[in-house]
Amino acid sequence: MIYVIGIGPGGKEYMTLEAIEAIKNSDVIVGYKTYINLIEDMISDKEVVQNGMRKEIDRCKMAVEIAKEGKDVAVVSSGDSGIYGMAGLILELVVKEDDDIKVKVVPGVTASIAAASVLGAPIMHDFCHISLSDLLTPWEVIEKRLRLAAEADFVVCLYNPRSKGRSEHLARAFEIMGEFKDGSTPVGIVKDAGREGEEKYICTFDTMNFEIVDMTTMVIVGNKSTFIDKDMMITPRGYTV
Amino acid sequence: MIYVIGIGPGGKEYMTLEAIEAIKNSDVIVGYKTYINLIEDMISDKEVVQNGMRKEIDRCKMAVEIAKEGKDVAVVSSGDSGIYGMAGLILELVVKEDDDIKVKVVPGVTASIAAASVLGAPIMHDFCHISLSDLLTPWEVIEKRLRLAAEADFVVCLYNPRSKGRSEHLARAFEIMGEFKDGSTPVGIVKDAGREGEEKYICTFDTMNFEIVDMTTMVIVGNKSTFIDKDMMITPRGYTV
Repeated sequence: MIYVIGIGPGGKEYMTLEAIEAIKNSDVIVGYKTYINLIEDMISDKEVVQNGMRKEIDRCKMAVEIAKEGKDVAVVSSGDSGIYGMAGLILELVVKEDDDIKVKVVPGVTASIAAASVLGAPIMHDFCHISLSDLLTPWEVIEKRLRLAAEADFVVCLYNPRSKGRSEHLARAFEIMGEFKDGSTPVGIVKDAGREGEEKYICTFDTMNFEIVDMTTMVIVGNKSTFIDKDMMITPRGYTV
Repeated sequence: MIYVIGIGPGGKEYMTLEAIEAIKNSDVIVGYKTYINLIEDMISDKEVVQNGMRKEIDRCKMAVEIAKEGKDVAVVSSGDSGIYGMAGLILELVVKEDDDIKVKVVPGVTASIAAASVLGAPIMHDFCHISLSDLLTPWEVIEKRLRLAAEADFVVCLYNPRSKGRSEHLARAFEIMGEFKDGSTPVGIVKDAGREGEEKYICTFDTMNFEIVDMTTMVIVGNKSTFIDKDMMITPRGYTV
Protein backbone atom coordinates (compact mmCIF):
# COMPACT_ATOMS: atom_id res chain seq x y z
CA MET A 1 0.00 0.00 0.00
CA ILE A 2 1.20 3.51 -0.82
CA TYR A 3 -0.27 6.35 1.21
CA VAL A 4 0.26 9.68 -0.55
CA ILE A 5 -0.12 12.05 2.33
CA GLY A 6 -0.63 15.80 2.50
CA ILE A 7 0.73 16.81 5.88
CA GLY A 8 -0.66 20.35 5.71
CA PRO A 9 1.39 23.54 6.03
CA GLY A 10 3.82 22.38 8.68
CA GLY A 11 2.94 21.90 12.32
CA LYS A 12 1.33 18.67 13.49
CA GLU A 13 -1.78 20.62 14.56
CA TYR A 14 -2.67 21.16 10.89
CA MET A 15 -2.53 17.46 10.04
CA THR A 16 -5.72 15.44 9.80
CA LEU A 17 -6.24 12.42 12.01
CA GLU A 18 -6.22 10.29 8.85
CA ALA A 19 -2.76 11.60 7.87
CA ILE A 20 -1.36 10.91 11.35
CA GLU A 21 -2.85 7.43 11.29
CA ALA A 22 -1.47 6.69 7.81
CA ILE A 23 2.03 7.70 8.89
CA LYS A 24 1.72 5.48 11.96
CA ASN A 25 0.65 2.53 9.77
CA SER A 26 3.55 2.88 7.34
CA ASP A 27 6.78 0.93 7.44
CA VAL A 28 8.73 3.38 5.30
CA ILE A 29 8.46 7.17 4.91
CA VAL A 30 9.54 8.75 1.61
CA GLY A 31 9.84 12.49 1.08
CA TYR A 32 11.74 15.64 0.29
CA LYS A 33 14.02 16.31 3.25
CA THR A 34 12.38 19.61 4.25
CA TYR A 35 9.04 17.82 4.70
CA ILE A 36 10.64 14.88 6.47
CA ASN A 37 12.09 17.38 8.97
CA LEU A 38 8.59 18.75 9.66
CA ILE A 39 7.36 15.37 10.90
CA GLU A 40 10.65 14.14 12.39
CA ASP A 41 9.27 13.46 15.88
CA MET A 42 6.52 11.21 14.47
CA ILE A 43 8.78 8.88 12.47
CA SER A 44 11.73 8.11 14.73
CA ASP A 45 10.92 4.38 14.55
CA LYS A 46 10.49 4.27 10.77
CA GLU A 47 12.75 3.60 7.84
CA VAL A 48 13.15 6.96 6.07
CA VAL A 49 14.02 7.57 2.42
CA GLN A 50 14.65 11.24 1.75
CA ASN A 51 16.33 13.22 -0.97
CA GLY A 52 16.63 16.75 -2.31
CA MET A 53 14.63 19.11 -4.49
CA ARG A 54 13.86 18.16 -8.12
CA LYS A 55 14.35 14.45 -7.33
CA GLU A 56 10.60 13.79 -7.28
CA ILE A 57 10.62 11.08 -9.94
CA ASP A 58 13.40 9.09 -8.21
CA ARG A 59 11.59 9.43 -4.91
CA CYS A 60 8.27 8.21 -6.28
CA LYS A 61 9.89 5.34 -8.19
CA MET A 62 11.53 4.24 -4.94
CA ALA A 63 8.17 4.34 -3.18
CA VAL A 64 6.61 2.14 -5.86
CA GLU A 65 9.48 -0.37 -5.57
CA ILE A 66 9.11 -0.48 -1.78
CA ALA A 67 5.37 -1.08 -2.11
CA LYS A 68 6.06 -3.94 -4.55
CA GLU A 69 8.13 -5.60 -1.80
CA GLY A 70 4.92 -5.71 0.20
CA LYS A 71 5.70 -2.87 2.59
CA ASP A 72 3.37 -0.02 3.50
CA VAL A 73 4.98 3.22 2.40
CA ALA A 74 4.01 6.83 3.06
CA VAL A 75 4.96 9.46 0.48
CA VAL A 76 4.66 12.82 2.20
CA SER A 77 4.08 16.22 0.63
CA SER A 78 3.49 19.47 2.47
CA GLY A 79 0.03 20.96 2.00
CA ASP A 80 -2.23 18.62 0.04
CA SER A 81 -0.59 15.78 -1.88
CA GLY A 82 -3.04 16.25 -4.78
CA ILE A 83 -2.19 19.93 -5.37
CA TYR A 84 1.26 20.34 -6.95
CA GLY A 85 2.19 17.38 -4.69
CA MET A 86 3.17 13.77 -5.26
CA ALA A 87 -0.24 12.12 -5.82
CA GLY A 88 -0.20 12.59 -9.60
CA LEU A 89 3.30 11.27 -10.09
CA ILE A 90 2.69 8.22 -7.90
CA LEU A 91 -0.52 7.38 -9.77
CA GLU A 92 1.13 7.95 -13.16
CA LEU A 93 3.82 5.42 -12.17
CA VAL A 94 1.37 2.95 -10.65
CA VAL A 95 -0.96 2.77 -13.66
CA LYS A 96 2.04 1.71 -15.77
CA GLU A 97 2.70 -1.27 -13.49
CA ASP A 98 1.22 -4.72 -14.01
CA ASP A 99 1.17 -5.32 -10.26
CA ASP A 100 -1.93 -4.30 -8.40
CA ILE A 101 -0.45 -1.68 -6.09
CA LYS A 102 -2.99 -0.04 -3.83
CA VAL A 103 -2.73 3.72 -3.45
CA LYS A 104 -4.60 5.88 -0.96
CA VAL A 105 -4.45 9.64 -1.42
CA VAL A 106 -4.77 11.24 2.02
CA PRO A 107 -5.90 14.87 1.62
CA GLY A 108 -4.48 17.80 3.57
CA VAL A 109 -4.72 21.56 4.02
CA THR A 110 -3.04 23.18 1.01
CA ALA A 111 -0.91 26.34 1.25
CA SER A 112 -3.57 28.71 -0.11
CA ILE A 113 -6.04 27.63 2.57
CA ALA A 114 -3.44 27.94 5.31
CA ALA A 115 -2.34 31.38 4.09
CA ALA A 116 -5.96 32.51 3.70
CA SER A 117 -6.70 31.64 7.33
CA VAL A 118 -3.79 33.86 8.40
CA LEU A 119 -4.91 36.78 6.19
CA GLY A 120 -8.61 36.70 7.16
CA ALA A 121 -10.97 35.43 4.47
CA PRO A 122 -9.52 36.30 1.05
CA ILE A 123 -10.71 33.20 -0.86
CA MET A 124 -14.39 33.32 0.14
CA HIS A 125 -15.42 33.66 -3.49
CA ASP A 126 -14.38 31.95 -6.74
CA PHE A 127 -10.61 31.67 -6.95
CA CYS A 128 -7.85 29.92 -8.86
CA HIS A 129 -4.43 28.49 -8.23
CA ILE A 130 -1.63 29.29 -10.66
CA SER A 131 1.93 28.06 -10.22
CA LEU A 132 4.54 30.50 -11.54
CA SER A 133 7.13 27.76 -11.93
CA ASP A 134 7.92 27.12 -15.58
CA LEU A 135 10.04 24.04 -14.89
CA LEU A 136 7.17 21.79 -16.03
CA THR A 137 4.77 24.24 -17.72
CA PRO A 138 5.53 26.50 -20.70
CA TRP A 139 5.65 30.15 -19.59
CA GLU A 140 3.15 31.13 -22.36
CA VAL A 141 0.55 28.85 -20.74
CA ILE A 142 1.14 30.51 -17.37
CA GLU A 143 0.83 34.00 -18.92
CA LYS A 144 -2.41 33.07 -20.64
CA ARG A 145 -3.89 31.73 -17.41
CA LEU A 146 -2.86 34.85 -15.48
CA ARG A 147 -4.49 37.12 -18.06
CA LEU A 148 -7.76 35.17 -18.26
CA ALA A 149 -7.94 34.68 -14.47
CA ALA A 150 -7.59 38.43 -13.96
CA GLU A 151 -10.18 39.13 -16.65
CA ALA A 152 -12.56 36.66 -14.92
CA ASP A 153 -12.06 38.58 -11.65
CA PHE A 154 -10.97 35.44 -9.82
CA VAL A 155 -9.11 35.78 -6.56
CA VAL A 156 -5.70 34.48 -7.67
CA CYS A 157 -3.44 32.34 -5.46
CA LEU A 158 0.12 32.19 -6.75
CA TYR A 159 2.10 29.04 -5.92
CA ASN A 160 5.90 28.94 -6.37
CA PRO A 161 5.80 32.72 -6.82
CA ARG A 162 9.50 33.54 -6.87
CA SER A 163 12.76 31.65 -6.63
CA LYS A 164 16.36 32.74 -7.11
CA GLY A 165 16.35 31.38 -10.64
CA ARG A 166 13.01 32.98 -11.50
CA SER A 167 13.11 36.30 -9.67
CA GLU A 168 11.30 38.20 -12.44
CA HIS A 169 8.26 35.93 -12.88
CA LEU A 170 6.24 37.52 -10.12
CA ALA A 171 6.68 41.09 -11.36
CA ARG A 172 5.78 39.91 -14.87
CA ALA A 173 2.69 38.14 -13.48
CA PHE A 174 1.56 41.40 -11.85
CA GLU A 175 2.18 43.27 -15.09
CA ILE A 176 -0.10 40.85 -16.94
CA MET A 177 -2.83 40.83 -14.30
CA GLY A 178 -2.60 44.64 -14.10
CA GLU A 179 -4.58 44.84 -17.33
CA PHE A 180 -7.67 43.85 -15.31
CA LYS A 181 -6.71 44.15 -11.62
CA ASP A 182 -7.07 47.67 -10.25
CA GLY A 183 -4.09 49.21 -8.42
CA SER A 184 -6.08 49.32 -5.17
CA THR A 185 -6.83 45.56 -5.24
CA PRO A 186 -5.73 44.04 -1.91
CA VAL A 187 -2.83 41.60 -1.99
CA GLY A 188 -1.99 39.23 0.86
CA ILE A 189 1.44 37.72 1.33
CA VAL A 190 2.16 34.95 3.83
CA LYS A 191 5.63 33.51 4.35
CA ASP A 192 5.90 30.09 6.00
CA ALA A 193 2.17 29.86 6.76
CA GLY A 194 1.61 27.51 9.67
CA ARG A 195 5.34 27.13 10.31
CA GLU A 196 7.83 28.66 12.69
CA GLY A 197 8.62 32.24 11.67
CA GLU A 198 5.31 32.81 9.86
CA GLU A 199 5.07 36.36 8.48
CA LYS A 200 2.06 38.18 7.05
CA TYR A 201 1.89 41.32 4.91
CA ILE A 202 -1.17 42.97 3.41
CA CYS A 203 -0.74 45.60 0.72
CA THR A 204 -2.33 46.62 -2.57
CA PHE A 205 -1.61 45.63 -6.14
CA ASP A 206 0.23 48.95 -6.72
CA THR A 207 2.30 48.86 -3.53
CA MET A 208 3.40 45.24 -3.89
CA ASN A 209 6.98 44.57 -2.80
CA PHE A 210 8.24 41.64 -4.85
CA GLU A 211 11.50 41.40 -2.90
CA ILE A 212 9.91 39.92 0.23
CA VAL A 213 8.52 36.96 -1.72
CA ASP A 214 10.34 33.64 -1.96
CA MET A 215 9.43 29.99 -2.60
CA THR A 216 7.94 29.48 0.87
CA THR A 217 5.53 32.38 0.30
CA MET A 218 1.91 32.39 -0.84
CA VAL A 219 0.65 35.46 -2.70
CA ILE A 220 -3.11 36.01 -2.88
CA VAL A 221 -4.49 38.76 -5.15
CA GLY A 222 -8.06 39.83 -4.36
CA ASN A 223 -11.05 40.33 -6.65
CA LYS A 224 -13.01 43.56 -7.27
CA SER A 225 -14.87 43.21 -3.94
CA THR A 226 -11.95 42.30 -1.70
CA PHE A 227 -11.22 44.86 1.03
CA ILE A 228 -8.78 45.42 3.87
CA ASP A 229 -10.04 46.22 7.37
CA LYS A 230 -8.32 45.92 10.76
CA ASP A 231 -5.30 44.33 9.08
CA MET A 232 -7.39 41.59 7.51
CA MET A 233 -8.06 40.78 3.87
CA ILE A 234 -11.69 39.90 3.25
CA THR A 235 -13.45 38.87 0.04
CA PRO A 236 -17.21 39.09 0.66
CA ARG A 237 -19.34 36.17 -0.44
CA GLY A 238 -22.12 38.63 -1.23
CA TYR A 239 -24.27 38.69 1.91
CA THR A 240 -25.77 42.04 2.86
CA VAL A 241 -24.54 42.64 6.41
CA MET B 1 -12.96 34.38 21.06
CA ILE B 2 -14.65 33.12 17.91
CA TYR B 3 -13.15 30.08 16.24
CA VAL B 4 -14.35 29.76 12.66
CA ILE B 5 -13.70 26.12 11.99
CA GLY B 6 -13.57 24.09 8.83
CA ILE B 7 -14.34 20.53 9.89
CA GLY B 8 -13.41 18.98 6.56
CA PRO B 9 -15.69 16.84 4.41
CA GLY B 10 -17.44 14.93 7.17
CA GLY B 11 -15.85 12.22 9.24
CA LYS B 12 -13.70 13.07 12.25
CA GLU B 13 -10.67 11.48 10.55
CA TYR B 14 -10.55 14.40 8.09
CA MET B 15 -10.45 17.04 10.82
CA THR B 16 -7.17 18.64 11.79
CA LEU B 17 -5.91 18.40 15.36
CA GLU B 18 -6.31 22.19 15.57
CA ALA B 19 -10.00 21.95 14.65
CA ILE B 20 -10.63 19.21 17.23
CA GLU B 21 -8.81 21.25 19.88
CA ALA B 22 -10.75 24.43 19.02
CA ILE B 23 -14.07 22.60 19.36
CA LYS B 24 -12.94 21.21 22.72
CA ASN B 25 -12.00 24.71 23.91
CA SER B 26 -15.33 26.27 22.97
CA ASP B 27 -18.27 26.86 25.30
CA VAL B 28 -20.83 27.19 22.51
CA ILE B 29 -21.04 25.57 19.06
CA VAL B 30 -22.89 27.41 16.29
CA GLY B 31 -23.71 25.89 12.92
CA TYR B 32 -26.04 24.70 10.21
CA LYS B 33 -27.77 21.61 11.54
CA THR B 34 -26.33 19.21 8.94
CA TYR B 35 -22.80 20.13 10.03
CA ILE B 36 -23.70 19.99 13.70
CA ASN B 37 -24.91 16.42 13.12
CA LEU B 38 -21.51 15.48 11.64
CA ILE B 39 -19.72 16.34 14.90
CA GLU B 40 -22.51 15.37 17.30
CA ASP B 41 -20.43 12.92 19.36
CA MET B 42 -17.77 15.59 20.03
CA ILE B 43 -20.09 18.23 21.43
CA SER B 44 -22.47 16.41 23.76
CA ASP B 45 -21.31 18.59 26.69
CA LYS B 46 -21.62 21.92 24.82
CA GLU B 47 -24.29 24.51 24.34
CA VAL B 48 -25.38 24.20 20.71
CA VAL B 49 -26.99 26.88 18.54
CA GLN B 50 -28.13 25.46 15.21
CA ASN B 51 -30.49 26.56 12.51
CA GLY B 52 -31.42 25.82 8.92
CA MET B 53 -30.15 26.65 5.46
CA ARG B 54 -29.99 30.29 4.33
CA LYS B 55 -29.91 31.50 7.93
CA GLU B 56 -26.17 32.20 7.80
CA ILE B 57 -26.40 35.86 8.75
CA ASP B 58 -28.56 35.16 11.84
CA ARG B 59 -26.21 32.37 12.86
CA CYS B 60 -23.10 34.51 12.56
CA LYS B 61 -24.72 37.45 14.36
CA MET B 62 -25.59 35.12 17.23
CA ALA B 63 -21.99 33.92 17.37
CA VAL B 64 -20.75 37.51 17.59
CA GLU B 65 -23.21 38.28 20.42
CA ILE B 66 -22.14 35.16 22.32
CA ALA B 67 -18.47 36.16 21.95
CA LYS B 68 -19.30 39.64 23.29
CA GLU B 69 -20.61 37.96 26.45
CA GLY B 70 -17.10 36.65 26.95
CA LYS B 71 -17.72 33.08 25.87
CA ASP B 72 -15.58 31.06 23.46
CA VAL B 73 -17.70 30.14 20.48
CA ALA B 74 -17.02 27.79 17.58
CA VAL B 75 -18.71 28.49 14.25
CA VAL B 76 -18.46 25.31 12.21
CA SER B 77 -18.56 24.93 8.42
CA SER B 78 -18.00 21.74 6.48
CA GLY B 79 -14.87 21.73 4.33
CA ASP B 80 -12.77 24.85 4.89
CA SER B 81 -14.42 27.79 6.65
CA GLY B 82 -12.65 30.27 4.38
CA ILE B 83 -13.98 28.73 1.11
CA TYR B 84 -17.69 29.49 0.61
CA GLY B 85 -17.87 29.04 4.42
CA MET B 86 -18.52 31.30 7.39
CA ALA B 87 -15.12 32.99 7.86
CA GLY B 88 -15.92 35.95 5.61
CA LEU B 89 -19.31 36.68 7.13
CA ILE B 90 -17.96 36.48 10.70
CA LEU B 91 -15.08 38.84 9.85
CA GLU B 92 -17.41 41.23 8.01
CA LEU B 93 -19.57 41.42 11.13
CA VAL B 94 -16.63 41.69 13.53
CA VAL B 95 -14.91 44.58 11.74
CA LYS B 96 -18.12 46.61 12.16
CA GLU B 97 -18.02 46.16 15.95
CA ASP B 98 -16.28 48.56 18.33
CA ASP B 99 -15.46 45.71 20.70
CA ASP B 100 -12.19 43.94 20.16
CA ILE B 101 -13.48 40.46 19.37
CA LYS B 102 -10.75 37.96 18.61
CA VAL B 103 -11.35 35.65 15.67
CA LYS B 104 -9.29 32.61 14.74
CA VAL B 105 -9.91 31.02 11.36
CA VAL B 106 -9.13 27.30 11.65
CA PRO B 107 -8.49 25.86 8.17
CA GLY B 108 -9.83 22.54 6.92
CA VAL B 109 -9.89 20.21 3.92
CA THR B 110 -12.29 21.74 1.36
CA ALA B 111 -14.66 19.66 -0.78
CA SER B 112 -12.58 19.86 -3.98
CA ILE B 113 -9.53 18.42 -2.19
CA ALA B 114 -11.59 15.66 -0.60
CA ALA B 115 -13.25 14.77 -3.91
CA ALA B 116 -9.92 14.90 -5.74
CA SER B 117 -8.41 12.36 -3.34
CA VAL B 118 -11.29 9.99 -4.14
CA LEU B 119 -10.92 10.45 -7.91
CA GLY B 120 -7.13 10.07 -8.07
CA ALA B 121 -5.19 13.26 -8.77
CA PRO B 122 -7.36 15.54 -10.94
CA ILE B 123 -6.22 18.92 -9.51
CA MET B 124 -2.47 18.39 -9.78
CA HIS B 125 -2.19 21.39 -12.10
CA ASP B 126 -3.64 24.93 -12.07
CA PHE B 127 -7.33 24.86 -11.23
CA CYS B 128 -10.20 27.07 -10.17
CA HIS B 129 -13.26 26.91 -7.98
CA ILE B 130 -16.54 28.26 -9.35
CA SER B 131 -19.80 28.15 -7.40
CA LEU B 132 -22.85 27.71 -9.63
CA SER B 133 -25.16 29.20 -7.01
CA ASP B 134 -26.56 32.53 -8.15
CA LEU B 135 -28.16 33.33 -4.78
CA LEU B 136 -25.35 35.79 -3.99
CA THR B 137 -23.59 36.18 -7.36
CA PRO B 138 -25.14 37.45 -10.61
CA TRP B 139 -25.45 34.60 -13.14
CA GLU B 140 -23.63 36.69 -15.81
CA VAL B 141 -20.54 36.79 -13.58
CA ILE B 142 -20.66 33.01 -13.20
CA GLU B 143 -21.01 32.52 -16.97
CA LYS B 144 -18.08 34.82 -17.66
CA ARG B 145 -15.88 32.94 -15.20
CA LEU B 146 -16.85 29.57 -16.70
CA ARG B 147 -16.00 30.75 -20.20
CA LEU B 148 -12.64 32.28 -19.27
CA ALA B 149 -11.69 29.36 -17.01
CA ALA B 150 -12.33 26.93 -19.86
CA GLU B 151 -10.38 29.12 -22.28
CA ALA B 152 -7.48 29.21 -19.78
CA ASP B 153 -7.55 25.38 -19.68
CA PHE B 154 -7.93 25.35 -15.90
CA VAL B 155 -9.15 22.21 -14.21
CA VAL B 156 -12.56 23.46 -13.03
CA CYS B 157 -14.11 22.46 -9.67
CA LEU B 158 -17.81 23.24 -9.51
CA TYR B 159 -19.25 23.97 -6.06
CA ASN B 160 -23.03 24.00 -5.48
CA PRO B 161 -23.44 22.43 -8.92
CA ARG B 162 -27.12 21.63 -8.94
CA SER B 163 -30.08 22.09 -6.59
CA LYS B 164 -33.78 21.54 -7.08
CA GLY B 165 -34.29 25.24 -7.66
CA ARG B 166 -31.38 25.48 -10.11
CA SER B 167 -31.49 22.19 -11.98
CA GLU B 168 -30.45 23.74 -15.32
CA HIS B 169 -27.33 25.61 -14.18
CA LEU B 170 -24.99 22.66 -14.54
CA ALA B 171 -26.05 21.81 -18.09
CA ARG B 172 -25.72 25.48 -19.02
CA ALA B 173 -22.25 25.57 -17.41
CA PHE B 174 -21.18 22.62 -19.57
CA GLU B 175 -22.61 24.30 -22.66
CA ILE B 176 -20.48 27.39 -21.94
CA MET B 177 -17.30 25.46 -21.14
CA GLY B 178 -17.90 23.29 -24.22
CA GLU B 179 -16.61 26.11 -26.40
CA PHE B 180 -13.10 25.25 -25.13
CA LYS B 181 -13.35 21.87 -23.36
CA ASP B 182 -13.12 18.92 -25.72
CA GLY B 183 -15.84 16.23 -25.54
CA SER B 184 -13.29 13.66 -24.40
CA THR B 185 -12.18 15.75 -21.40
CA PRO B 186 -12.45 13.60 -18.24
CA VAL B 187 -15.03 14.63 -15.67
CA GLY B 188 -15.06 13.38 -12.08
CA ILE B 189 -18.14 13.38 -9.92
CA VAL B 190 -18.08 12.64 -6.19
CA LYS B 191 -21.21 12.59 -4.06
CA ASP B 192 -20.80 12.95 -0.29
CA ALA B 193 -16.99 12.83 -0.43
CA GLY B 194 -15.63 11.65 2.90
CA ARG B 195 -19.11 10.92 4.25
CA GLU B 196 -21.25 7.83 4.62
CA GLY B 197 -22.61 6.76 1.24
CA GLU B 198 -19.77 8.31 -0.77
CA GLU B 199 -20.18 7.67 -4.51
CA LYS B 200 -17.72 8.24 -7.34
CA TYR B 201 -18.30 8.43 -11.10
CA ILE B 202 -15.78 9.15 -13.82
CA CYS B 203 -16.98 10.02 -17.30
CA THR B 204 -16.18 12.45 -20.10
CA PHE B 205 -17.46 15.91 -20.93
CA ASP B 206 -19.71 14.49 -23.66
CA THR B 207 -21.10 11.59 -21.62
CA MET B 208 -21.86 13.67 -18.52
CA ASN B 209 -25.06 12.71 -16.73
CA PHE B 210 -26.39 15.83 -15.02
CA GLU B 211 -29.17 13.96 -13.24
CA ILE B 212 -26.86 12.25 -10.73
CA VAL B 213 -25.56 15.59 -9.45
CA ASP B 214 -27.01 17.34 -6.42
CA MET B 215 -25.86 19.90 -3.84
CA THR B 216 -23.69 17.40 -1.95
CA THR B 217 -21.78 16.61 -5.15
CA MET B 218 -18.45 17.95 -6.40
CA VAL B 219 -17.91 18.06 -10.17
CA ILE B 220 -14.33 18.33 -11.44
CA VAL B 221 -13.71 18.97 -15.15
CA GLY B 222 -10.20 18.14 -16.34
CA ASN B 223 -7.77 20.12 -18.49
CA LYS B 224 -6.32 19.17 -21.89
CA SER B 225 -3.83 16.74 -20.30
CA THR B 226 -6.16 14.99 -17.86
CA PHE B 227 -6.61 11.28 -18.51
CA ILE B 228 -8.52 8.32 -17.13
CA ASP B 229 -6.70 5.09 -16.28
CA LYS B 230 -7.70 2.18 -14.01
CA ASP B 231 -10.80 4.10 -12.94
CA MET B 232 -8.78 7.09 -11.80
CA MET B 233 -8.74 10.66 -13.06
CA ILE B 234 -5.21 12.03 -13.30
CA THR B 235 -3.99 15.48 -14.37
CA PRO B 236 -0.23 15.26 -14.96
CA ARG B 237 1.96 17.94 -13.45
CA GLY B 238 4.24 17.63 -16.45
CA TYR B 239 6.92 15.16 -15.34
CA THR B 240 8.21 12.77 -17.99
CA VAL B 241 7.61 9.34 -16.51
